[in-house]
Amino acid sequence: MTRLNSWIASANTAETPFPLNNLPYGVFSIAGGPRKLGVAIGDQIVDVAQMEDALPVDPAVLSDPRGWNGLMERGAEIWVAFRSALTEALFEGAVERPDALVPLAEAKMHMPFAVSEYTDFYAGRHHATNVGTMFRGPDNALPPNWLHIPIGYNGRASSVVVSGTDIRRPWGQLKGPNDEAPKWAPSQRFDIELEIGAIVGQSSDGPISVDQADANIFGYVLLNDWSARDIQAWEYQPLGPFQAKATATSISPWIVTKAALEPFRCATPVREKDLLPHLRDTGPMLYDIPLSVTLNGETICETNYNEMYYSSAQQLAHHTTSGCPMRVGDLLGAGTISGPKKANRGSLLELSWGGKEPLELANGDTRSFIEDGDTLTLHGAAQGDGYKIGFGDCTGTVLPALDTPFKG
Amino acid sequence: MTRLNSWIASANTAETPFPLNNLPYGVFSIAGGPRKLGVAIGDQIVDVAQMEDALPVDPAVLSDPRGWNGLMERGAEIWVAFRSALTEALFEGAVERPDALVPLAEAKMHMPFAVSEYTDFYAGRHHATNVGTMFRGPDNALPPNWLHIPIGYNGRASSVVVSGTDIRRPWGQLKGPNDEAPKWAPSQRFDIELEIGAIVGQSSDGPISVDQADANIFGYVLLNDWSARDIQAWEYQPLGPFQAKATATSISPWIVTKAALEPFRCATPVREKDLLPHLRDTGPMLYDIPLSVTLNGETICETNYNEMYYSSAQQLAHHTTSGCPMRVGDLLGAGTISGPKKANRGSLLELSWGGKEPLELANGDTRSFIEDGDTLTLHGAAQGDGYKIGFGDCTGTVLPALDTPFKG
Repeated sequence: MTRLNSWIASANTAETPFPLNNLPYGVFSIAGGPRKLGVAIGDQIVDVAQMEDALPVDPAVLSDPRGWNGLMERGAEIWVAFRSALTEALFEGAVERPDALVPLAEAKMHMPFAVSEYTDFYAGRHHATNVGTMFRGPDNALPPNWLHIPIGYNGRASSVVVSGTDIRRPWGQLKGPNDEAPKWAPSQRFDIELEIGAIVGQSSDGPISVDQADANIFGYVLLNDWSARDIQAWEYQPLGPFQAKATATSISPWIVTKAALEPFRCATPVREKDLLPHLRDTGPMLYDIPLSVTLNGETICETNYNEMYYSSAQQLAHHTTSGCPMRVGDLLGAGTISGPKKANRGSLLELSWGGKEPLELANGDTRSFIEDGDTLTLHGAAQGDGYKIGFGDCTGTVLPALDTPFKG
Repeated sequence: MTRLNSWIASANTAETPFPLNNLPYGVFSIAGGPRKLGVAIGDQIVDVAQMEDALPVDPAVLSDPRGWNGLMERGAEIWVAFRSALTEALFEGAVERPDALVPLAEAKMHMPFAVSEYTDFYAGRHHATNVGTMFRGPDNALPPNWLHIPIGYNGRASSVVVSGTDIRRPWGQLKGPNDEAPKWAPSQRFDIELEIGAIVGQSSDGPISVDQADANIFGYVLLNDWSARDIQAWEYQPLGPFQAKATATSISPWIVTKAALEPFRCATPVREKDLLPHLRDTGPMLYDIPLSVTLNGETICETNYNEMYYSSAQQLAHHTTSGCPMRVGDLLGAGTISGPKKANRGSLLELSWGGKEPLELANGDTRSFIEDGDTLTLHGAAQGDGYKIGFGDCTGTVLPALDTPFKG
C-alpha cells in the first residue's frame, strides 16, 4: 500500500504521523470549549460533528459524551462504512470542507473513549525473562505457565488518563529485604512500562475464539503502565500487583484503528511449546510497529510491537475462557514490550537491571528509576511505503509525592 | 435499639428480614414489566417512584436506569434525609399508601446498582491461614505482608450478577502437579467463597483515611465469589487470580445500608502486629452479622462477619493509598469469612480440606467441590432486640459446562 493523498496538504508527506491512511479517533477541545470528537489528519483535526452530512452514522455517535464508545457499539460494519466515508470525504479532489477543520496545535486532547475495565498482560517474553532472571535467577526466569497462557491481571479503569496528564509519585507501604518492618513512604522505585493497549469494540458473553477476538478489537493506543516497583515487591504475593499499578496508566490520545494497521500485520514468534488449540494463532495477529521511549527528550529504549509472544487477540480470547463477559471500551495492555538487546528494554527496571546498572544520560546524569520532574514519553509509528501510521505521543511528567497524602 | 413498627403489618415481627429498621434498596420487576427501584419492608416492596411526593430527592434518582447509583451520587446528607423520610412515611400511624406497595413474592429482582469496578480482598485470617496451611504448610501459612496490609486484587465488574442467576461451570486451562502438560477442560474444583461486599457511595481522587473511607461506604451485600480452584492453581503465579475468578460473582439483591447496620458495629480483633498509622482502627468498623451457607438446603457453614481481620473501611483506605481513584458503585468483596472451627469455614476448599476430607451430607452424599445442579445459598441477618436486619439470600445453581465452549 502507498500513501493516499488528501485535499489537506499537510497530510501528504512521508513524515506526518497522520496521513489519510491513518485517520485516528480522538476527543479534543479548543480554548476551554466543549469536548468534541475529532479525527487527526496532517496538522489538522476534523471536527466530525461538522461533517455529519457526509458520515453514515447516527448523529448521536458524533457527539457521544463518552467519546468513541458509540461508534464502537454500532458494530464492525459501521466501523468500515464510517472509515470509508471519511476517507472519501477527505480524499484529494473531494469537495473541500475547511469549515470542519481545526488546527491540531490549538487542541487540548482528552480521553478518546470511556474505559469500561482495564486488564494488563505480561505477554512479552524478553520482559518476562528479564524480570524473572532478576527475581528468581536465569533457570527459573519464566514461570511454568508462561509458555501456555498469556498471563494477565485486572487493573483499575479509574486510573487510566490521557497523555499529558501529570503523574503524582505515589506513597505506599514499602519493606526492603533487610528492613525489620514495613514503612509508609513515597515510592523510590517508580517506573514506566512501554506497552500497546488494545480496545475491545464489541461485547461478548462467553468464550470466544482467537479469530472472533481479533474481529472484536476496534483499535490500539500506546500505553504506559506506571509501576511502583517497591510497592509491588512487598504487596504482590500471593494475589498479584494492586496499589503498585493503581496510581495511573497513561494512553496516547488517538485510537489507531485496526483497519489502519492492516498492512503491518505480522506473525507471532515460533512457539517453543505448542499452544492448546483454542489459543493457537490463526493468522498474523501482531503488527510491525517501531516504538521508542524518551526520558526528558533523550531516547532510552527502541523496540517493536512485533517482539510480543502473544497477540492482543490471543490475550482477549484467553480473557473470555472462563466465561468472563467483555464489554465495549475494555482496554487490554499487552505487557511490557522489550526486545532482545539492552537498548530494547521497555522499563527502567530492566534498563538499570533493578538499579544495579544505572542508565547514563547524555548530560552526565544517571537514572535507576524516575526522578521528580522527569518527563517520560512513548512514541510509535508503523512505517509504510512513503507514509507512517503514527500513534501520537504518550507522555507524562512525574510530580513530587504529596507531603501528607491523607485527606480527613 | 428496638423494633420500629410500620403500618405494613408484615414488617412488625421478630422474624422478618425486612422490618422498618432495615429498609434495604433493590431493583425489581413484576411480570416482565420495567425495572423499578424498590425498598423491601415485611413481605412487600415499596415502589419508590410512587412515593415521589414524600421523598426529598430529585425524581430522576427514583427511576435511575442504573439502580441506586443516583442516590449514592447525591451524597451522604441526602442518604440520611432519604432514609428519614422513608422511615417517617412507613411508620405506624402515617398515612397509609397501599398503592405504592407490591408483594415481594411476585417480584423478580435485578442488580441493585451498576458496578463500576470490583475488587476482592483476602482479609479473613482464618481463611488465609487455612488456605496457606494447605498450600505452604502451617509454618508459612500467612504471607509476610498479611498482618500489615489488607491484601486484595482487582476483579471483573462485568462478571457480577444478582442472586438467582444460574452459574455455568467454566472451562479453563488446568494442570495437575503430576500432569506433563496443561489441558483444556471444565473445572473440576469449582467452589464458593462466602463474603460480604461493601459498596462505595462517594468517589475519591487520592488517598483517604479510614474514617473517610467508612463515611464513603453506602451499604453492604452478601457476595459469593465463585472460584475455580484448579484454574487458579495453574494461572495465579506470578500475577494473581484471573480467569479462576471471572466466571461470576453473585450478590444478594438488596443493599443493606450502613445506617441500618449501625447498632451492630463491633471492633476488629486485637492486632498481632501494630498496623501503620494510616491503616489503624479509629473505632468499631466491623459488624456482628451471623452468616451461613446452605448446599441444596442443608447448612454447611455458620460464621460471622465479625471474624474479619480488616474492616471494609480499612480495605477501602488501603485501596486509595497509591492515589487510585475510587468511584460511586465500586464493589469491595471482604474476602472469605471463615471462623475458627471447621463448621465455620466459608469455602468448600476449606470445608473439604482441598478435597482430602469430603463433606458428608445428610442424604449420604459427599462433596469435595460443587457438582452440577447444586444450589449454593448464602444467608445473613444481624440480630437486634426483637428484630433482624436481613440481607435476602444470595443464591445460585451451577449448570453443567458447555459441550463446546467456543463461539466462532
